[in-house]
Amino acid sequence: MLEKVRIVLVNTTHPGNIGGVARAMKNMGLDDLCLVSPKEFPSEVADARASGALDILENARVVSGLEEALADCQLAVGTSARERHIPWPLVNPREMASIVVPSPQKTAIVFGREDRGLTNEELQLCHHHVNIPSVEGFSSLNIAAAVQVIAYELRMEQLKLEANQKGGSDRPSWGTDWDIELADHAELERLFDHLEETLIKIEFLDPENPRQLMPRMRRLLMRAVPDKVEVNVLRGVLKAVQKKLLG
Amino acid sequence: MLEKVRIVLVNTTHPGNIGGVARAMKNMGLDDLCLVSPKEFPSEVADARASGALDILENARVVSGLEEALADCQLAVGTSARERHIPWPLVNPREMASIVVPSPQKTAIVFGREDRGLTNEELQLCHHHVNIPSVEGFSSLNIAAAVQVIAYELRMEQLKLEANQKGGSDRPSWGTDWDIELADHAELERLFDHLEETLIKIEFLDPENPRQLMPRMRRLLMRAVPDKVEVNVLRGVLKAVQKKLLG
Repeated sequence: MLEKVRIVLVNTTHPGNIGGVARAMKNMGLDDLCLVSPKEFPSEVADARASGALDILENARVVSGLEEALADCQLAVGTSARERHIPWPLVNPREMASIVVPSPQKTAIVFGREDRGLTNEELQLCHHHVNIPSVEGFSSLNIAAAVQVIAYELRMEQLKLEANQKGGSDRPSWGTDWDIELADHAELERLFDHLEETLIKIEFLDPENPRQLMPRMRRLLMRAVPDKVEVNVLRGVLKAVQKKLLG
Repeated sequence: MLEKVRIVLVNTTHPGNIGGVARAMKNMGLDDLCLVSPKEFPSEVADARASGALDILENARVVSGLEEALADCQLAVGTSARERHIPWPLVNPREMASIVVPSPQKTAIVFGREDRGLTNEELQLCHHHVNIPSVEGFSSLNIAAAVQVIAYELRMEQLKLEANQKGGSDRPSWGTDWDIELADHAELERLFDHLEETLIKIEFLDPENPRQLMPRMRRLLMRAVPDKVEVNVLRGVLKAVQKKLLG
């Protein structure tokens, strides 16, 4: 069940941390690691800290941008400190696991830079934000330690589900099975691009003064976790608006 | 509540691990560290990895035997791999936290050597054994990562107790407080009426053959449970579309 979970590290500075992350992942049964522009990789320091999880490092994919790392994922969770400008669905690691593990969605969990985490723009690519409830005033965990906590909660949830399945309860979360595949990251981004373009054309969005309009739109639609048909319907609406304006 | 918890490390080889443990402790609100015959301490490597948790290292007590570290404790928990010669009360980290945090007893949680953990004799000094449920075949966590998981569970339990004492959960479920009231039923219905009217005007919705378009739109937006501002923004968009078409 955890094969669908990808750990994404953005702009990691210290290769030792990448090794520590690989070890933490392997201990908890995760194996899909994606590195967005790491400062130094591959690295002997990473190999040493991985302490036997070399297969994870060897199979890690290195990409140049977060969007590429997320492209085939249907659910993205960003790790975050508490304060952010606009409220976004925020969960603790346990709640995160209860969302991620039972779902069939390809999921990315995104960790930011050692010194300053993820940017607001990066966080807005994510459906949920997860916060490890550290103490105020000393809140920044080492990145490998943060991955360890997240991976631990995923494994605890998986073990719980396995135990439940043996005992029978397998509660459906919708009235019927959701029969349509969820939209992936790339489809959602095309939708948001199309929406932004249309809002500019109808002069609702002023590109000189965009305010929080697109973040609000993203937040609203991502909360709903749209499926592929829903995204197509919305894009059909946008196309119809643009056609009317030109025609 | 966590002041009564002491972290005890037995014969740690790598000073970097001691630093990592100090950081993990401080992140989660623990501050009592006791080192049983560490190989190298104090150490600059430990200080560097502690990344700001120097106070924990400075106040750490170094002793020569585990018994001395446990002397003033009323409860001792030893971290352990699964197989042991004689059965002993074995808990997972969550169960451990639910035992330790509510109790008034001075408690030590004991972590063994990097390469081979605690001896059977050391484990038998402990009331409970705690096991982090890692995967078979790659079960040894880095010691700082193990302390992070244990300390995280202690903190989660403490936050749960605090919330219960306040008489309800006040954990924030959003990155900041959701400051805007949710839309009520009537506002949502006006939004859907406005949307339907607009979709007809742009000739996306055929009133003679509406198919499942409006139910899909409803389902999508209601899943997101929009607030009043979000509903107003959406209605602003619809108004802008209609104005463009007429103007």
